[in-house]
Amino acid sequence: MFHHLTRVMPAEVIPVQDAVGRVTAVPTPAPHNLPTFRRSTMDGYAVRAADTYGASESLPAFLQVIGEVPMGKPASITLGIGQAALVHTGGMIPETADAVVQIEHTQTISQSQLIIHNSQLFPYEIEVFRAVAIGQNVLQIGEDVHQGSEILPAGHWLRPQDLGGLLALGITEIAVTRRPRVGILATGDEVVPPQQSAGPGQIRDINSYTVGGQVQQAGGIPIYGGIIPDNFAALLAAAEHMLAAADMLVMSAGSSVSVRDMTVEVMNGLGQPGVLLHGVATRPGKPTIVGVVDGKPVIGLPGNPVSAMIQFDMFGTPAIYRLQGIQMAPRRGLVWAQLTQNIASESGREDYIPARLTDGEVGMLATPVFGKSNLIYTLVNADGLIKVPLNKGGLLAGEWVEVRLF
Amino acid sequence: MFHHLTRVMPAEVIPVQDAVGRVTAVPTPAPHNLPTFRRSTMDGYAVRAADTYGASESLPAFLQVIGEVPMGKPASITLGIGQAALVHTGGMIPETADAVVQIEHTQTISQSQLIIHNSQLFPYEIEVFRAVAIGQNVLQIGEDVHQGSEILPAGHWLRPQDLGGLLALGITEIAVTRRPRVGILATGDEVVPPQQSAGPGQIRDINSYTVGGQVQQAGGIPIYGGIIPDNFAALLAAAEHMLAAADMLVMSAGSSVSVRDMTVEVMNGLGQPGVLLHGVATRPGKPTIVGVVDGKPVIGLPGNPVSAMIQFDMFGTPAIYRLQGIQMAPRRGLVWAQLTQNIASESGREDYIPARLTDGEVGMLATPVFGKSNLIYTLVNADGLIKVPLNKGGLLAGEWVEVRLF
Repeated sequence: MFHHLTRVMPAEVIPVQDAVGRVTAVPTPAPHNLPTFRRSTMDGYAVRAADTYGASESLPAFLQVIGEVPMGKPASITLGIGQAALVHTGGMIPETADAVVQIEHTQTISQSQLIIHNSQLFPYEIEVFRAVAIGQNVLQIGEDVHQGSEILPAGHWLRPQDLGGLLALGITEIAVTRRPRVGILATGDEVVPPQQSAGPGQIRDINSYTVGGQVQQAGGIPIYGGIIPDNFAALLAAAEHMLAAADMLVMSAGSSVSVRDMTVEVMNGLGQPGVLLHGVATRPGKPTIVGVVDGKPVIGLPGNPVSAMIQFDMFGTPAIYRLQGIQMAPRRGLVWAQLTQNIASESGREDYIPARLTDGEVGMLATPVFGKSNLIYTLVNADGLIKVPLNKGGLLAGEWVEVRLF
Repeated sequence: MFHHLTRVMPAEVIPVQDAVGRVTAVPTPAPHNLPTFRRSTMDGYAVRAADTYGASESLPAFLQVIGEVPMGKPASITLGIGQAALVHTGGMIPETADAVVQIEHTQTISQSQLIIHNSQLFPYEIEVFRAVAIGQNVLQIGEDVHQGSEILPAGHWLRPQDLGGLLALGITEIAVTRRPRVGILATGDEVVPPQQSAGPGQIRDINSYTVGGQVQQAGGIPIYGGIIPDNFAALLAAAEHMLAAADMLVMSAGSSVSVRDMTVEVMNGLGQPGVLLHGVATRPGKPTIVGVVDGKPVIGLPGNPVSAMIQFDMFGTPAIYRLQGIQMAPRRGLVWAQLTQNIASESGREDYIPARLTDGEVGMLATPVFGKSNLIYTLVNADGLIKVPLNKGGLLAGEWVEVRLF
C-alpha cells in the first residue's frame, strides 16, 4: 500500500506557536548560532581562568570585582589581570573573561561588601576558593545549535520542545503539511445513526466515530458521510462524491460477506490502482480491504467495532501519517528500554536524562543525550527522559530503565 | 499542592463525536443493554443446539432451512424441531433458536440449493457436520454492557473507543469539564519576544511557547501574556490581571536568583494560600515554585528551557489534569509489561489481545481483557493491546509482552 502512497499534502505556513502535532513540510536550517553570545550558566563572577589557578579554601585567590554585567545587555567590561565581573545566570560573559566562578565558591572581603553588590559600588574585592578551567560554567556560541545545521528535517511531527527550538532562532512561522481530510462512510442495512433508537435487529453506527477519533489523533480531519444503503450504485456514488472532496476514504462495511465483497467492487470502480490488499491475518479483524485510488488511500474496514479500530490503527493511522509526510511515527507514554551506556547520578535526587530511543533485539534501547540543561536541543534531539530514581547512584549500561516519552 | 486543588472546572455539554481528549464531568450509566437483542457472530444458520448433538463429518445432522433473517429486521421466524434459519453476522437470532452453526460447517443437500440461498426459495435442506452448544456463536443481550451499569466514571479522559461505547447506547451528547485556560507570563530583563531579533545579552522567549504546547497536550488552552519587566509591581499587576481571566497561572522566571525570589513574593501577594512548595530535588531543574491562589494553581518555573519543560511536566500537567477532574492520567505509546496469565493463540497469525495495565513490582503488569471482538467495551475497559507475534503459539504468564497503548 505505502508503495503507492506517494502523495503528500501541500504545505501551508502557520504560526509556530500553533504547530504542536503538525508535521514539517521542509527541512529547517538554523539561521544563526544559538546561543549568539557566551552566556554564564551560574550566578557568579566572570574571570580569567588563569587568575584562579591554584586557588583553594586555605589559599584563596584574590580578585577585584570592577563591575556587573546587567541582564539583557552587552558585557562591555574589559577585565585586566586579577579582575572579575559580577554576572548572573544567562548573562553575557565579557570578551576578556573565559570562565565563571560560582558565587558559592567566593566570599567578599568584608561583610559590608555584600550590601554593595546591589548598590553597584565597584570595585570591591573577593576571595575565590576554587580554581576554574577555561570555559567552565560558560555556554559557548553555537553550543546549542550551529548556524546552518538542520534543526528539523521535513516530515517531523512537532512537539512542544520543537516549537522552542524554532522560536529560539527567531523562526515564528513554519511550513507544515495540511491536515488530511478523511471521508468516512458507513454501510450496513442493520446500521442506524447513533441519535436514532435501534429496533430489533438494528445497531447504531459507532465505527464512523471511533475511526473519526482515530483520524483526529493521527492529525487528520474526519468528514462524516453518514450511512449508505447496502447497494452497489449507492455506495459507489457516495464513495466517488466523498473521495473527490477528501484526501482519503474509509468505508466501514456491514458485517456480512456480501457487503464486504461489494466494498471490493466499489473500490475497484473508483479508479486506479484500486484494491491492493484484501485480508490480513490478525485477530481480531475480519479481512480489511486496503487500496489506493488516484494517490488517495481507500480503506474498507470490517463491521465489528473492535476489529475496525485495530485495523484502522494498523492501516489508517499510518496512511494519515504518510499523507502528512511523517518520517517517523510519534511515540507517547512511558516505555521500558535498555540503557546503552552508564549514567552517573548523585544520590538523594531524582534525575531526568534526555534519551534517544531505538529498536533493540528485545524491546527498545535508550541512549542518553548529554548536554547542558540550558540547551533546548538536548530535548529536541531526545525521544524521552530516563528517570534515575532517588537514592540511586547512577545507572549501568544494560540496565532496564523507565523512559518517559516527551 | 494537590491537597489544595479541590476546584474542578464547570461542566459543558458537547457532542460525543467531538469529545476525544475531553474529560467526563459525571458518571454515565448504560440506558439499556448492549446488544439489545441476541446477535449472530457468524454467517451461518440459527438452530436449536439439541438438533445438532452428535453431528460429525461422517454422520451429519439434517436440518430444514425455513427462512432467512434479513439484516436490520426482527427475526420473526419460529423454528420447529429440526429446523434452521439462515442468518448473517450481526443478524438477530430467532427466539426459538439458541445457537448458530457456521456456514463453513454445513452443506446444502444439492448444488442447485446454493443458488437458492440468494433467491430465498425456502425451505431447503442442509447437512451439519459439527455439533454446537447452547449459546455458541451468539452474542447475548447485555453481553457487551448491562443496563444501569456505569460505563464511564466521572473524570475519564475520552478516547475513540469511549466515543463508540457512548454512541452505541444512543448517548450523543456528554457533559465534560471545560478546558482550563492557563495564563502564561514570561519575565527576565534579558528576554525578548521570539519575533524580535536578540541583541548581545538577550535571548528570545521560548518557555512561554514550549509550556503553551504542553498546556495544549494536557487539554488546556494557553493564554500568552507576553514578557513582563523584572519588577515587583509590574509582575504582580500582570499576574493579578491574568489570574482573574484564567484558571491557572504559569510564570516563567528569568534565570537569576533575585527574579526567582520576586516570583515567590508575587505569588504570596496574589492571595491565599500562596506558595506551597519551593524547590524540588531533581535534575535538571532549579527550584520550581508551586502554589495555589483561591483554588487556582500558580507555578513559577525556572528560566532554563529544559528545566522549565520538565518541571512543567511534573507539576503543571498534573495540575491541568486535576482541574479537568481527571482520575487517571492518560497513557500513550508502546510499553513492555509482564503478562499475568497465559494467552492461547494460533500460530501463523498476529493476535492483538486487549489488556488492562497496572503497576507491578518491576514495571507494569498486563492483564488480558477477554471478550468477543464485537464488544466495544472490551476496548473501553482496556488500556492497550497485547501483540502476540506471528508464529508464536500463545504467551505464558510472567512473560514480558509489548502492549500498544490504545
